[in-house]
Formats: sequence, C-alpha cells, structure tokens
Amino acid sequence: MRKNQVLSLFQKNKTALNCWLIHPCPMTAELIAHQGFDSMTIDMQHGMIGFESALAMLQAISTTSVTPIVRVPWLDPGIIMKMLDAGAYGVICPMIETAEQTREFVATCRYPSKGNRSFGPSRAMIYAGNDYPEKAEETILPIVMIETRQALDNLDEILTIEGLGAVYIGPFDLSYALGCQPQSDNYEPPVMEAIDHILSCSKKHGVPAAIHCMGPEFADRMRKKGFSLVTAGCDADFVRSGASHTIKALRQ
Amino acid sequence: MRKNQVLSLFQKNKTALNCWLIHPCPMTAELIAHQGFDSMTIDMQHGMIGFESALAMLQAISTTSVTPIVRVPWLDPGIIMKMLDAGAYGVICPMIETAEQTREFVATCRYPSKGNRSFGPSRAMIYAGNDYPEKAEETILPIVMIETRQALDNLDEILTIEGLGAVYIGPFDLSYALGCQPQSDNYEPPVMEAIDHILSCSKKHGVPAAIHCMGPEFADRMRKKGFSLVTAGCDADFVRSGASHTIKALRQ
Amino acid sequence: MRKNQVLSLFQKNKTALNCWLIHPCPMTAELIAHQGFDSMTIDMQHGMIGFESALAMLQAISTTSVTPIVRVPWLDPGIIMKMLDAGAYGVICPMIETAEQTREFVATCRYPSKGNRSFGPSRAMIYAGNDYPEKAEETILPIVMIETRQALDNLDEILTIEGLGAVYIGPFDLSYALGCQPQSDNYEPPVMEAIDHILSCSKKHGVPAAIHCMGPEFADRMRKKGFSLVTAGCDADFVRSGASHTIKALRQ
Amino acid sequence: MRKNQVLSLFQKNKTALNCWLIHPCPMTAELIAHQGFDSMTIDMQHGMIGFESALAMLQAISTTSVTPIVRVPWLDPGIIMKMLDAGAYGVICPMIETAEQTREFVATCRYPSKGNRSFGPSRAMIYAGNDYPEKAEETILPIVMIETRQALDNLDEILTIEGLGAVYIGPFDLSYALGCQPQSDNYEPPVMEAIDHILSCSKKHGVPAAIHCMGPEFADRMRKKGFSLVTAGCDADFVRSGASHTIKALRQ
Amino acid sequence: MRKNQVLSLFQKNKTALNCWLIHPCPMTAELIAHQGFDSMTIDMQHGMIGFESALAMLQAISTTSVTPIVRVPWLDPGIIMKMLDAGAYGVICPMIETAEQTREFVATCRYPSKGNRSFGPSRAMIYAGNDYPEKAEETILPIVMIETRQALDNLDEILTIEGLGAVYIGPFDLSYALGCQPQSDNYEPPVMEAIDHILSCSKKHGVPAAIHCMGPEFADRMRKKGFSLVTAGCDADFVRSGASHTIKALRQ
Amino acid sequence: MRKNQVLSLFQKNKTALNCWLIHPCPMTAELIAHQGFDSMTIDMQHGMIGFESALAMLQAISTTSVTPIVRVPWLDPGIIMKMLDAGAYGVICPMIETAEQTREFVATCRYPSKGNRSFGPSRAMIYAGNDYPEKAEETILPIVMIETRQALDNLDEILTIEGLGAVYIGPFDLSYALGCQPQSDNYEPPVMEAIDHILSCSKKHGVPAAIHCMGPEFADRMRKKGFSLVTAGCDADFVRSGASHTIKALRQ
Repeated sequence: MRKNQVLSLFQKNKTALNCWLIHPCPMTAELIAHQGFDSMTIDMQHGMIGFESALAMLQAISTTSVTPIVRVPWLDPGIIMKMLDAGAYGVICPMIETAEQTREFVATCRYPSKGNRSFGPSRAMIYAGNDYPEKAEETILPIVMIETRQALDNLDEILTIEGLGAVYIGPFDLSYALGCQPQSDNYEPPVMEAIDHILSCSKKHGVPAAIHCMGPEFADRMRKKGFSLVTAGCDADFVRSGASHTIKALRQ
Repeated sequence: MRKNQVLSLFQKNKTALNCWLIHPCPMTAELIAHQGFDSMTIDMQHGMIGFESALAMLQAISTTSVTPIVRVPWLDPGIIMKMLDAGAYGVICPMIETAEQTREFVATCRYPSKGNRSFGPSRAMIYAGNDYPEKAEETILPIVMIETRQALDNLDEILTIEGLGAVYIGPFDLSYALGCQPQSDNYEPPVMEAIDHILSCSKKHGVPAAIHCMGPEFADRMRKKGFSLVTAGCDADFVRSGASHTIKALRQ
Repeated sequence: MRKNQVLSLFQKNKTALNCWLIHPCPMTAELIAHQGFDSMTIDMQHGMIGFESALAMLQAISTTSVTPIVRVPWLDPGIIMKMLDAGAYGVICPMIETAEQTREFVATCRYPSKGNRSFGPSRAMIYAGNDYPEKAEETILPIVMIETRQALDNLDEILTIEGLGAVYIGPFDLSYALGCQPQSDNYEPPVMEAIDHILSCSKKHGVPAAIHCMGPEFADRMRKKGFSLVTAGCDADFVRSGASHTIKALRQ
Repeated sequence: MRKNQVLSLFQKNKTALNCWLIHPCPMTAELIAHQGFDSMTIDMQHGMIGFESALAMLQAISTTSVTPIVRVPWLDPGIIMKMLDAGAYGVICPMIETAEQTREFVATCRYPSKGNRSFGPSRAMIYAGNDYPEKAEETILPIVMIETRQALDNLDEILTIEGLGAVYIGPFDLSYALGCQPQSDNYEPPVMEAIDHILSCSKKHGVPAAIHCMGPEFADRMRKKGFSLVTAGCDADFVRSGASHTIKALRQ
Repeated sequence: MRKNQVLSLFQKNKTALNCWLIHPCPMTAELIAHQGFDSMTIDMQHGMIGFESALAMLQAISTTSVTPIVRVPWLDPGIIMKMLDAGAYGVICPMIETAEQTREFVATCRYPSKGNRSFGPSRAMIYAGNDYPEKAEETILPIVMIETRQALDNLDEILTIEGLGAVYIGPFDLSYALGCQPQSDNYEPPVMEAIDHILSCSKKHGVPAAIHCMGPEFADRMRKKGFSLVTAGCDADFVRSGASHTIKALRQ
Repeated sequence: MRKNQVLSLFQKNKTALNCWLIHPCPMTAELIAHQGFDSMTIDMQHGMIGFESALAMLQAISTTSVTPIVRVPWLDPGIIMKMLDAGAYGVICPMIETAEQTREFVATCRYPSKGNRSFGPSRAMIYAGNDYPEKAEETILPIVMIETRQALDNLDEILTIEGLGAVYIGPFDLSYALGCQPQSDNYEPPVMEAIDHILSCSKKHGVPAAIHCMGPEFADRMRKKGFSLVTAGCDADFVRSGASHTIKALRQ
C-alpha cells in the first residue's frame, strides 16, 4: 500500500507541512502538489468544493506523492466513508465536541471489527494498491477538530479514543468559543493558552496535534512549539495576496 | 451599453492593468475580479480553459465591473464570434503575421456592413444591455498579437487596418522569433528593441499597444514607457509563487 | 456589507418578488437575474441542483443586485453552513416541525455567541465584503418552511424563536398534510384557511411570512393579503409553458 | 436505424416543428423534448454550448423520439464530424456562401465514396443502431444556412449540390446582408422578398427549406408559405418571456 | 406512468438482471443501458458519483427502458427524496439495521398519508409522466440492505415493514459482519448460510430478495436459488477486466 | 524532463502497447492507467471528449507513468498546440494526405527555430518538468494518420518529413479508402496489403509505424509484423464486451 507521508513524519517526530484547498480547481491542486508540501487538504466544509470537484482534485494530487486529506462538512457517515473510498488518506471532522462523537467518527473510518465502515474502496484501491483492505486501518488518519468550548472541556476524554489519528486546532472557531475575535495568525492570549493546552494534552496522550495557520511565520512558530502538522498556506490566499500585491505595487 | 473600462482608459491616455487567467476556475476568477484590475483576460490559447470553463469565468468576472477579454486559440471565426457572443469585450488573437490576417480578424469581430460577424449575441446582450447590437462596434476591442518575425516585418501595414483595437506583444514568442531565449520580464536587447519599435510604431499609427508582463516591476517599466495596457500578473503565478514562497520559508 | 434586498423590503413593509430555480443552469439563472426579481431561490431540495451547480448559479446571480437565497435539502448543518459560506443571503429549511428544530436551524445560521455556525465564509466575504463576519447576523435570513400538520400545531412556538428571519409556506406539502390534493395556485378551503392562519400568526409575532406561488395571479392575491415575500415563478415552468404554448399554437 | 423524424416529415410534405437551444442545460433540453417538437437544435454557434454540454444535451434529447440537430460554429470538419459521431441527425452549417463550400460541407457529412467523413460513430451507433454505417447517408441531413449576400447570389448553384439536406434561412444575418435591421419575426420588405425567393428556388430544386422564427405566429405564417421546417421557439426566449411577463404582471 | 420493469418482473416471479455503476460517466451508462439489463443502479455510496453526475447518468439511462435505481450514501432524507425527485424508480439504502430504520426509510420514499416524502417530483414527472404523484407509491421500490449482524438479528421485524420493496444483500459487508473475509462471489460457509437464511426469510414474508454479485456465474447461481434481482456486473469491473485481459494477452 | 515511454520503446525496437479512450471519464482513465499499458490515447476526434474532459483525463493518466497521447479532431494549430500545452507527449493528427500537411503539422508541434509552436506550456511544464522548453522537441511525438488513398499515394514523401514521430494506420478509414468494408481486426486483402506496404515504407524511412487494433489477438499479429506501437483495446469496448458477455451468459 502506498505510504501515508504524514503518518511517516508523525512516526519520525517530524512536522508535516500541509496546504489547504478551498477552490474547486484541479489545475490549482496539481500545480500546488508539485511545490513540495507533505500533504494537501481538500476542504469540503468551508471550501467551495462538492463531491465532483473533490474527486477531480484527489486525482490531481495523486499525480504526486503528496498525501491527500479531506475535511468533511460534518460528522456524517455518508460523506466520510465516501471520501475514504475516493482515496483520502486522512479525514478531518469539524466541530467534534465529545468523546462519543470522536468514537463514532473513528469507527466510521475503520472496517469491522474495529469500526463500522462499509466496504467498497472503489478509487482507494486504485490509488493505494490491492492490499488497501488489510492496510487501511494502519494507514488512514481520522482527525478531529478541537474548536469549541465543549471540545476543550472534553479534551482528555477525546484524546483517549483508540484509533484517533490526530487532533486539529481551528483557531478561528476557537477564538469565537473563547469570546475572542479571530485574527490571522495573531490570536489573543486566551486562544494562545488554549492552543498550548491542547498541544500539551495531546502530547500527554501520545496523539499528534495539528494546527491551522494562515502563513509560514506562524506555521513555523507552531512547528517549533511541537505541532506534528501545520497548515501553512491556502490556495485562495495565494491568489488573493498575489493579486493584491500586484495591484498595490501598481496603484500608488 | 455597459462600458468597456479598458477602452475608456485608452481614451484618457491611462494604462489599463490586466490580469491573466490560465486556470479553469470561476472561483479564482471571481476572487481576482475583486482585487482591482481594470481587465482580466481568459487565455483559451495556452490556458487550460475550454468553452464551458470560459463561460463560467466570464460570469464570475461579470460579478464586478472588470472588463472581460478573451485570448482565442487561433484565427478561427467560430471561436472568435462565440466568445464575443459570450460577452467578451476584447478578443486577443495570437500569431497574427499580416495585414490581411488582421483585416480578416477585425472583420470577424464586427457586424455588417463593417465586418462579417454573424448575429446572435446571446449572453453579450444580457451582460452589456439591449443596445449591444448598435454599440458593439464602438465598444469591443479586436486585439492582435505581435510575436513573430513576419508580424514585425508587416507591422506598419498591420497598424493601418481600420477598426484594430490594439496590438499585444507576446515577449516569449517574440524572443524565439528573434533567436533569443524567453526569460521572465528580463529580455535580451534584440527583444527590448523590438518592444520599443512596436510601441513607437503603434503610437505613430494611433493604435494602443499592450504587453504581457509576468510581474508588477516589469509592468511598471512598460507602463512608464507608454504602453496602454500591461498584463501584470497571472492566476497560476500567484498560486505557484505563494506556495513556493511558503515551502521555502519552512524548508531551510 | 452588500445589502439584503429582501430584508430591506421587509423593513419597509413591501413585498419581495422571488423567483424559483430548479434547473442546474447558470445561464438561465443569469438571464432571470436581469429581469427584475428582488430575490432568486436556488432549490437544492426538489431542484436538480447539487453543490457545484448551486455555486455556479450563485455566481451568475451575483452579476446583479438580486438577493440569493438557497433552499437546502434538509435540516443538516453541513449543507446549511456551506451554502452560507457560498454567499447565500437567505436559507430556507424544509419540513421544520418544532420550535426545537427552528432553534437548531437558526443557530446553525449564526456565529457564536448567538449560534454555532462554524467560521469560514470563503465566498461570502468576496460577495458581501470584508465586514461580513460582523454583519452576517443582521443580514442573513434563516427561513423555515411551514408545511406539515406538526408545524401548524407548533406554529406559535416556532414563531417565538429569536433570530428567525421568516416562515415560508409550501402549499403542496401543506395540502397533503391537510388531507387535500395539491393543485397549482388553487387550493381547497382547508389549505386556504391554514394559509390565512399562518399569515395572521406570523403578523402577530412580527415574523415576515412568505409563500410559494406558481404564477403571478396567485402571487398578487397573496401579496395583497399581506405576505412579505411571494415566489411568483420558476425557471422550469417558464420553459414548460413557453414550449407547450408554442406547440399548442402550431398543432391545432 | 432509428428514424429521422424531420426527414420523414419532409418526405410526407409536412412541416417539422423545431425548437432552438442556446442554454447549456440538459434538464431544460429534456423538459422541452417532452413537449412535442419534432426536432430540437443545439446551437453551438451563438449558443452558450461547448462540446461537453452539447453531448449531455444530446443524451437528454435522446430520452424521447425528438430528432437532434446541431448547428456547428463554422465550416470546420473537426467539429462537424464530431457532432455526427455524437449522434446528431442533422447538422446546420452557418455562413455558407458558395456551392464549393456546400459541396465541402456535404462531403464532410458523408462516408466514402460519397464524401470524406472519417469513420468512428462512437455514440451515433448507440443512439441509432448497429446499421448506422450503412444507413447514415440516407438518414442524416446536412443543412446549409442562407444568410449572406453571396449565398443569395450563388443560391441556384448551392441548391444543385447532391446530398444537400435542406437550406436554413437566418433572417437576422440576412437582414444585415440586405442593409436592413433585424427585428423579431417582422422583417422589412427586402428581407421578406429574399425569404420568398429562397423558398421558391428551393422548391424548384426540390430541396427542403427551413427558417428561423422567434415565435409561433411567424412560424405559422412560414409554415403556410410552404417551409419544410420552422424553428418556432427557443429555450432562452421561453425563460425570458416567462420571467418578464411575471415581473410585468406584478410591477405595475 | 412509465412502468417499473423490476417490479413487473417481481410480480411475474422472474429475476431482474441489474448492472452496477460506480464511475461518473453518462456515456458509459448510456452504452450499458443498450446492452439488455433490466435495471441499472447508480451507486452514490461507494461509487465515485455525486449529485451532478448521478443526474446526468439518470438521463443517460432514460434513453432506454432500463429501470433506474440509486443507492444512496446513507439513511438521510435529503438525498433519498432528492434522488426520487430526480427520477429513481428504486432506492437502495445501505447499512439498515432495525425495523425502525426501515420504517423511517420507507416513509421517506412515500407521500402522505403513507409516508412523509416532501412533494416536488421535478424530473420524476418528466420521466414518469403526469400521473406520477398518484402512482409513485405503487411504482417505486424502497430497498434496504441487509449487511450487518444487527440486520440479521432484526431480519424478521425488518421484513414486516409495510411498503418495503425488497431487501438487498451486500456480501462484502456481511462477510465482515460474520468475521469472514470478503472474496469475490466465493464466500465462506457462514456467509452462504446467512445468504440462504435471508432469502428464505424474505420468501416467508413475501418480500423480494436481491443480491450483489460480481459476475454472471455467481449471479446465475443466486438466480437459481430464487433471488428476485441479481446484480451481475459493474462498469468498473468491465473496464478493469477488459484492460487487464488485454495486457495479460500481450505481456507473456 | 519526464520520459516519453513510447519513444524509449521505439528506441529499443520494442513495441509500445497503447489503449484508446473515447469516454469522457477520468475515473475510467485512471483505472486503465493502472493496468499496465505503455501509453493511452485520448481521442478528441471520434471520442466523446472535449477540452475540459481531455484535461481531466490527462491529469488522471498522470497519476501513473503511462505516456499520454491525444488524437486531435483535425489539422488545426489551435487545438494541437493547446493539447501539447496540456501535457500530451504525442499528438495524432487524422486524415493527413500530403507531405505539405505533414510538414505543417510537425511544425505546429515544435518551437522555433524548427517549427512555429507558440510558447506557453502551462500544464506541460508541471507534468514534464522545468526543462520542458528545451527538451520538448526531442521528447514529443507528432504522429500522422495514414488512412486515405491520397496518403498512400504520397506516403514516401510524407515519411521524409523531418521531425515526424510516427505514422499511425487507421484501418477503418483505410478500408473505405480502398473500397472495402471495415471489419474489426479482420480486413480484406487490399487493406492487409496496404498495411504491409505502409509498414515496410516506414521501416525504409526509419519512421516508427503504429496501428489501431480492436483486440489483443490482432494487436499481437501486428506487433509480430514489426509495428512499433499497437493500440490493443478501447475503454468503450471493454465496457460493451463486459456488459454484453454478462447479459449473454444470463439470457440463454
């Protein structure tokens, strides 16, 4: 079975560099896949991406060895299993608040007897290889987002769920949860404290921690803190900042 | 009829800032359309864009007042007229080499009696307004690329064709034509001389001159030289440079 | 932030004219958007429209000032939040039956602390402007359908939910609910009585009431009754009636 | 081989009723196909329809017995043969001006020895049946548009080309050609005279004549004159007039 | 209303031959629809098929009299009702485990007073005819999958639910459920016993039983056992085996 | 630059195994790409494939090392250059009849000074690598089809054109050209003689010869004859034969 690069980096205590995708454009995805990230995440929650686009983007990413991850819109077995069948090597589930939800989510990502994923890895077996059914469990990363008050309260319990691949911090929603305003890569103290808290709890439980950053500077800080995966850029931000930089340079 | 912003700038002796699009992504197009360019060009020649994508991108650009231009793949009346019917306010035709081709191209963009464009402005009338049939001629810009040895030889004749909206320099092909190697925004002396020559001939004939640049620095130089339109950035380059900058910052 | 025209009309006690879309065609949407409706609703429940089509249609509608509304397939946070992120200024949720469901739905449409919408207004910020995060709450309309026996029974409670933008009557399902047969714009007395009842309860609670009509005559009657929004036509009906009228005229 | 209904009507001296499609929407096409036209024409010249959309629309039309016709963008063997391979039973070629172009066009539609169509009827054999290769010649209608001054001048010669299926009058371009302004179904005398002339010449040569009309009244007049096929409506017009009628009824 | 061929075969005690589709390709669907199956199932659970593709495939299948069935991703009213509105004549719901879920699913497929399906059969009425609303109940087949331990335990109860159209055995998941390894059409004794058990229970309750097979040999065995519908092939398997047979023949 | 596997095989005097694609399905393309062919050809002439589909299929093929080839619809510089920019490593041009056409075609595939390809390898540089501009000439295969009487007459001249990558025999059109009926892989003596003649002429001129076969048996015969590339299967045929075999096995 084709390797999960993110998992390999986790196992070597290295930090995976992830890129975020919210535009439904396989050409953009293919271009980014050749720039050197370890993984790319197709955001089906806030991104402008439905199933047809996500599939085409998974194919575009598969032209390289970059590991494909999908953020699903919600804790919904239909779409989670479908994206795994489409070849996602990691699934990020937003708005997880309890250990019970975490258990349900992880089970959705695993075949029996460990879980209740339904069998039918149509594209996954093409992408990963014929031993996918046996190796999926040890290869695929079920990742829960920690971004609400309740999730913070239940963090220790969440982290004990067997099979959990990682936790992923969404600082924007977390800011709201803590009564703060979201700002790009520059969060208020309660948010930064929560980030530190989640990281240290994760380490205690031996679960890799990941975090969403907007740019390389904050990503680097987070990497140095000890995060196992940092999202360090996003397709739409590349476009917006390239275009607005160009305009600013020419419209003084 | 909705105004052609590029034409208005031409008439005020100001330089239009153009953005280039080669990815088939309406979301990217819509995002860029909100950044402040005067026009955006959908490249159906070298861009990864067929008719269906181009149409969706024209709609995305039409959410703003940015003027939509299309570069067609070749001097072919079928696609030229179709993109005008789809609402393009400018059409750039590549690889034009003679006055006769220029005349044919310009006629393809104009209704009788001035030309032989076939009538059926299906989306153009929605985009532009009901007076499109009468006002199209004075609004639409037929633009020929000057990028070959032959075009240079025939430049004066090309510039005399009535109805020509502008000439557009493609420095990459022009470099090849002059036996040079294309380099981003940093051309060898024969190319720079040809650029100057085309600009001054255009001015002599009162035809606006446009030029393809990769970034704002060169675009600014060209603007200062007196070009009427400068392409100053491209969707794919924004993505590539954003992604590679991020990677470089994190992979020392 | 770009205005919500429907809300403005509500505030002026005027009736918004809405058009319904069930065909996955951005060209049709763009054409209709230029005809003068105040709002257009993309029907993802009974319409033949998935996410990819809905996004393209939202872009097509955004070429005008017509306010975009989306009817989602079901009370499902994943799709509700995603359509808001895509720029919908109103969301209609079908088959709502209780105050609890209404509360859950309204919360799904609002950021904390008022609700639990997850943050990531990717296209919404492009469409609406950079102040979207602050202004979304006062701009976006969460609308519940009243179309079942249970909804009628719980109507008063439903109408007390804070943040509810409007109620929308679906006379077809309502006819079924009342043991009647659905007929176009010509409902049996129990249905008409229920319509009157819903309208007067809504007025009592100060919640705008909206109703689905098939054609302008019934829409006008409903407007005169005092409805705040009337759906007065539908893309597929325009096509069907235009085509069948043509055929009838020629096939005597 | 599946019958060409239009050809059968021609052979019975009856008039075929044709509907025109310019929106890239298979749902609209399928809906119209159930209303009772004899044929539907997918307009790839002025319509907003590329190959992918045209294919999906051909499939939608094929859910009924309505005969599918395609208007191609130009006299270009690549697209003409491709649309025949996709299952078009008639091809309308715009802007034909000479007998030589007519001969070339007709040959493009026929297999050797009568023509030079390349063999590969991928979808056509599914749609039509396994005897397509033998029966295509007697079933498929190559149709040329008569819409320019030159075409009028060369009309007699054009009509003598063996294998020509019909001529199709485009009154808009014809109006331009005759120095008149195009008006919907209400043409100036020179245009009406040209229409009569084309019809009588066609009859003389035994070639069916067809004409583009906007609505049923004019279509009926043309049918009574003796046209073999009348286009009597268009998807976009159905939508536009349905929507604007609705708006007018409600915005006095 | 257009007939449901599968239901007709059930009523005649004949076995329906079904083909499975997991590739999002309307051309493949149309080609297969002409080969002679009684029904085709669009798999939106494990297949690489979202709503847009499924709709186009339903149109492609509708070019023939083959009965269209859809497997939905999950017991979710939004997608179940939407696929019925799109014209599915059967819906297969995966992972059903209890009588309560079965009741809920069947109700989702039926209009009041028998169920709670919301009214809006947009494409279904085009496909089926104007009497769809009255005849849908007696025509449409709600089909539940039996593929888990719990479903086996609750089988008798599940089979008593009024309105249930059929049960469908998924031998892969069933193998997992019984602690066996899935193998193509060659299952271990516990699985074969469960298959026999489900079949005989279904017969006892007068509910048609269906089963997923990979190839014609096993399908034939199952037909002879008395199954009412056998899936006997799959688009992706046709492609894979055709391609790998070709390669093997040439790569000795 | 990524290697052209077909060219490498040519250089080693081995026969490349090619698969043909006429369905617009990236999933089918990706699945086939994993079965072991050396190259796959996207047929934009007779295949149901426009630019958007072709691009997605090129991405799907690029998930493997299989070499992508495109057959263009016609000798048209616009589409030839665009498909090269999209990453095609070979272009097959149909219906070539003269040395002059061959020269024009080959020039269209090469940058100056050897040809007149316009510069803009947008996706090609991503797929192939940054040295694409320098290495394209030695890597890309311009291939002409030999399938008409005139091509046979001009064969020797055609084969002398510098830069020609291969000739490709289309036995169906060739059968027509020789007054024979096309039959799958079982051609009449005049056709077989022409095949032998083309092969031996090609060998004489040192130009690799390729041939279109329907199945592995004929492909093997052709390989043994000495063809450098044999097309040995086609996506649609895999589907059709898999489906019809299944039906036959079950419908005795």
